Amino acid sequence: MVRKLQVGVSGLGRMGARHALHFLDRTPRAELVAAFDPDEKALAWARQRLKPYGTKLYSDYEAFLQHPGLEAVVVAGITTQHAAQTIRAIEADKHVLCEKPLSTSVKICEDVERIARAKPHLKVLCGFSRRFDGSYRDAAHRIKRGDIGRPAILRSQTCDKHRDDDYFVQYAKFSGGIFVDANIHDIDLALWYFGADSIIKSVTAVGINARLTDLSQHQDVDNGVGIVEFHNGKIAYFYASRMMAAGQIDTTEIIGTHGKIVVNGNPQKNLVEVHEANGIRREVPQTYYDRFEEAFVTESNEFTECVLDGKELPFGLSGAITAVKIGDALQKSLRTGRKLEFNELGEEIVEDKARL
Amino acid sequence: MVRKLQVGVSGLGRMGARHALHFLDRTPRAELVAAFDPDEKALAWARQRLKPYGTKLYSDYEAFLQHPGLEAVVVAGITTQHAAQTIRAIEADKHVLCEKPLSTSVKICEDVERIARAKPHLKVLCGFSRRFDGSYRDAAHRIKRGDIGRPAILRSQTCDKHRDDDYFVQYAKFSGGIFVDANIHDIDLALWYFGADSIIKSVTAVGINARLTDLSQHQDVDNGVGIVEFHNGKIAYFYASRMMAAGQIDTTEIIGTHGKIVVNGNPQKNLVEVHEANGIRREVPQTYYDRFEEAFVTESNEFTECVLDGKELPFGLSGAITAVKIGDALQKSLRTGRKLEFNELGEEIVEDKARL
Amino acid sequence: MVRKLQVGVSGLGRMGARHALHFLDRTPRAELVAAFDPDEKALAWARQRLKPYGTKLYSDYEAFLQHPGLEAVVVAGITTQHAAQTIRAIEADKHVLCEKPLSTSVKICEDVERIARAKPHLKVLCGFSRRFDGSYRDAAHRIKRGDIGRPAILRSQTCDKHRDDDYFVQYAKFSGGIFVDANIHDIDLALWYFGADSIIKSVTAVGINARLTDLSQHQDVDNGVGIVEFHNGKIAYFYASRMMAAGQIDTTEIIGTHGKIVVNGNPQKNLVEVHEANGIRREVPQTYYDRFEEAFVTESNEFTECVLDGKELPFGLSGAITAVKIGDALQKSLRTGRKLEFNELGEEIVEDKARL
Amino acid sequence: MVRKLQVGVSGLGRMGARHALHFLDRTPRAELVAAFDPDEKALAWARQRLKPYGTKLYSDYEAFLQHPGLEAVVVAGITTQHAAQTIRAIEADKHVLCEKPLSTSVKICEDVERIARAKPHLKVLCGFSRRFDGSYRDAAHRIKRGDIGRPAILRSQTCDKHRDDDYFVQYAKFSGGIFVDANIHDIDLALWYFGADSIIKSVTAVGINARLTDLSQHQDVDNGVGIVEFHNGKIAYFYASRMMAAGQIDTTEIIGTHGKIVVNGNPQKNLVEVHEANGIRREVPQTYYDRFEEAFVTESNEFTECVLDGKELPFGLSGAITAVKIGDALQKSLRTGRKLEFNELGEEIVEDKARL
Repeated sequence: MVRKLQVGVSGLGRMGARHALHFLDRTPRAELVAAFDPDEKALAWARQRLKPYGTKLYSDYEAFLQHPGLEAVVVAGITTQHAAQTIRAIEADKHVLCEKPLSTSVKICEDVERIARAKPHLKVLCGFSRRFDGSYRDAAHRIKRGDIGRPAILRSQTCDKHRDDDYFVQYAKFSGGIFVDANIHDIDLALWYFGADSIIKSVTAVGINARLTDLSQHQDVDNGVGIVEFHNGKIAYFYASRMMAAGQIDTTEIIGTHGKIVVNGNPQKNLVEVHEANGIRREVPQTYYDRFEEAFVTESNEFTECVLDGKELPFGLSGAITAVKIGDALQKSLRTGRKLEFNELGEEIVEDKARL
Repeated sequence: MVRKLQVGVSGLGRMGARHALHFLDRTPRAELVAAFDPDEKALAWARQRLKPYGTKLYSDYEAFLQHPGLEAVVVAGITTQHAAQTIRAIEADKHVLCEKPLSTSVKICEDVERIARAKPHLKVLCGFSRRFDGSYRDAAHRIKRGDIGRPAILRSQTCDKHRDDDYFVQYAKFSGGIFVDANIHDIDLALWYFGADSIIKSVTAVGINARLTDLSQHQDVDNGVGIVEFHNGKIAYFYASRMMAAGQIDTTEIIGTHGKIVVNGNPQKNLVEVHEANGIRREVPQTYYDRFEEAFVTESNEFTECVLDGKELPFGLSGAITAVKIGDALQKSLRTGRKLEFNELGEEIVEDKARL
Repeated sequence: MVRKLQVGVSGLGRMGARHALHFLDRTPRAELVAAFDPDEKALAWARQRLKPYGTKLYSDYEAFLQHPGLEAVVVAGITTQHAAQTIRAIEADKHVLCEKPLSTSVKICEDVERIARAKPHLKVLCGFSRRFDGSYRDAAHRIKRGDIGRPAILRSQTCDKHRDDDYFVQYAKFSGGIFVDANIHDIDLALWYFGADSIIKSVTAVGINARLTDLSQHQDVDNGVGIVEFHNGKIAYFYASRMMAAGQIDTTEIIGTHGKIVVNGNPQKNLVEVHEANGIRREVPQTYYDRFEEAFVTESNEFTECVLDGKELPFGLSGAITAVKIGDALQKSLRTGRKLEFNELGEEIVEDKARL
Repeated sequence: MVRKLQVGVSGLGRMGARHALHFLDRTPRAELVAAFDPDEKALAWARQRLKPYGTKLYSDYEAFLQHPGLEAVVVAGITTQHAAQTIRAIEADKHVLCEKPLSTSVKICEDVERIARAKPHLKVLCGFSRRFDGSYRDAAHRIKRGDIGRPAILRSQTCDKHRDDDYFVQYAKFSGGIFVDANIHDIDLALWYFGADSIIKSVTAVGINARLTDLSQHQDVDNGVGIVEFHNGKIAYFYASRMMAAGQIDTTEIIGTHGKIVVNGNPQKNLVEVHEANGIRREVPQTYYDRFEEAFVTESNEFTECVLDGKELPFGLSGAITAVKIGDALQKSLRTGRKLEFNELGEEIVEDKARL
């Protein structure tokens, strides 16, 4: 009989519960043997939905880590716990799939990477979902094959549907800001398509609060635009929004010297169009998960495959850190109103105004 | 100074008025010198809109034909007058641009053609607007160039927006029926793309009255589907409707052995898309004229050019007759419920049931 | 621990192997406990791919049926065995998911249904994949909700990509013909959207062999067009082709009195568009499975759920029989060149020419 | 008889010749009575194409201005002559339609406006072609009607097809730079949709030379990205490129608090799509004129109408000046690498570093 990866999921909130189900139901080579959440409500759900299939439930993270035979941990709880739980799992010699971001602090991200690097036999993956999406991969394949010449400009946006509640405002307390939370994906795409060796040269960001004025409490915005220059002569520019009317509208363009690739230039929920008295209408995905559900499932399966078969992960941790670094810089540019500049090592050039 | 074609328009109803304005305003090499309509209301409009530019108005067709210097006549009045006026104009030695159809009677169409053939110095054009549309011409060009191999199957539809009034019911009295009135354009496209030498082999049509039940008074339908086989092994199938919710939806596909061309697979009024709470919406042309206005203007200009420069017309009268013949056959198949068959000369094969 | 459905797959050819993997890997509530194929090559594949996960392999169908604990059988081998295997499985008291068609013979289909009806505790499903596709279901939901008024006209096509080999010619020996093999899906859609009570009134079909001239050996064509009238005043028209240049192009339109729904009006493989020197290009699914893979997986899961939870199947066998009946009639119309007519019971009206 | 506007065109280069023909052939209420160009080659063309219709040709601008009865002048020669010729025409009491930009110098633009303001009986229009495009007007209408709530973010790009020659490099000598030459249209759209009272708050631009490295001689780039903040809390961001593979790709999005409008999200030349072995392809306009030809013709006609009927022009000169000002600021930001800031009067805030 074939061996299945013994997986545990930490955090059974909205996204964590999905990860648990992906491993339970849609990752044939894995077995969801354990799940952890400190919250009783989450555990109650798990008793209904996971336990009947043999998943052992824990309310204590350390006990969870010691589940007999546990090989890999999915860290999917609140962002502020990502790094600490990842580090503890590595120390307990577990493979880790950690939801993005590792941390909103570059320093802490670097700590995680250093600790991971010390245990090269472990697979530690930061889950950038778009890296597992069929369309983004198709784009990557075409770019690598040279279809558009040398990539030069990237435009990418992550735009959420407007919500009438205060979800985005609450979320902004811990999210690190719109560029770190939403555009982190677009930044990661830039690093992917431009090459991981792309060194940041300058960063500028602006933003407004068009509807969610309470976001300003957290120095955040509901619409942000940013530009990132790289030292290799490439430019990425980003847009993030929390107020799309129609749904989740994540679009990316990669412009090369000899062609252009557009991913999701025509957002659509499915293949249906409706002719009505006022025109032709199509619906679009309502949430990030609606758009990227298949990518998350692919992520579970490939992480499992890499661990079981000793394959290399599709991308390393360092890109995840660079993405946070750029996201943080955009957020800082937004807050300060300044354009930030970086030397060829990617270190911020701080003008010593006092010296002038 | 350059010479301008001296043109007169006969019939100033909805379509005739448009033709008049196309020649007045948008056909640089023509001059609208005369216009005829027996109806006082139409003439009142013309006194406002045409006369100030020097167009002489007539309520008598014969007087109109004798307008000094008149060279060409646009026959654009009611369908039942098309043939008679065209014949009289030819007799008066005028070039003619006649709105489609020449007649709903094949016999009368043939009369017109015979009379026209006797005066080869005259240009006599039956106005199939799609022949002048940029997209349909682009398709023709690609087909001729061999881009799709040998054309084998054609699907084409002419679908009008639903109207709450009884326009279509009134119109059905004289229109010749939905296959002759609406699908005539699609039939003409089949002859264009398949080759004018395509001989009809069989015809089947069915139809329903889904909304305009009064159409059955005129043995007509608001939705019709028909298939035409040709002796050269090609098949065209058609759909016509009077009840589109969104607007005018005229789509054509030409399927060849090595490729396919779609014309207007994504109907749209302009380049605008609107994101709303319930999805992404675009509007579509509301009427046939909305969709083909530019084609009509091109028609005016090319007719003028052919006359002035002695160029050959882009297509002859015989196709127009064949189109009416096929349309009539479809209408007959609809009425009788029978599949009609034709020999290799395109003559209907009538089973003599009595003899059996 | 939860109970999982004990499933066996009969037939491990191209489609059967896919079904086996869907139950093995992508149907969480099922267990693939057995598989049957008489062919050694298929079994060799299964020894590699299925056996390690505990699937028992059989080269004898009767032995397979007696696999201990087997509850449900997927009949996915060659078409000519569908009915016989389904009947034997029912007799052995197994639930059955049978690939379409049950048989190309209406008579045999009716036998299967009668035998299934005698064991109402068994779930017997004929796998019309589009019934499980998200977009087609969305369309069904909208139609049921009344979004387009009363459905009146349906246009649907199943068009395969051209293949350079003789696959389609070989396949035509057993397929029952293009209308039974390919358009059966479109016919099923008509029955779904128009209502299962739609009684066939007339049928007309024509076709050509534009590229695969050898198909005429089997009285089949590579391009077919058909029209079906129903006694409730609705019309469906179909197109099937074996020579699409770009890929699998399956499009459906449902036109109602107050709106229209288009499914897959813009075929596309994924969300990527490429800008190149000669324009903007997108790719399309290459095969039927590329387009409907997710639908097949949904089918496996829902069949499993219906059996385990005693739920009603989403549709019964009688529609599958009607679809074959209509497909057969279209094929007969194609062969004979005649329009076929049916009385209000759906029985063909045979003109007794001798009596005339 | 109706009166026609007596128009003269100055400059018969590529764009000037088009303007001449628009007035000659496609502006029914105007008469092209005169044309000026100092260049013999241009005049040779005009002798063939314009003179036969009665247009008098001039190689001297002053003589041209004194053409008997001349009422209006179209200034369409090289950019560096726009302002001087416009001023002279105003002094000669002519209405003026001047190609954009009035000048690449804000100061000179202001001079023109002051001189124009002194003769309020004259119509002086700066030709922003997109203001006359049906799709952009439709967008404006929807925005004004409140369809998308309050406009907050605008994204707009002007992207030319790559050319193998050195056209863009030569052109950069006089064009004022990519933001002034190309994005000027997008800036104008921002002012249109955000309101003419939008006061610039900050400007940032970056750029690269991905293919046309010689552009750096003129401190210009072949790809530029810029962000403009306005004091009313709105943000516009722009992209311009000289290296599109497929053709002219000018897209605009206006994001409001309650909806979004996209103009030309799916560029296309016409309504044709071609199915080929490698997918489905559509072509796109190749040049700016291909895309906006109809808008230019509308411009001619509306300018004529405003003069003849004493109507107000659709927009005044001040916006044209603001657009140049913002374009210049973007170009300055590109050159200096600095973010520029502006006070609430729109005056640049110059940091006095010496004072620190």
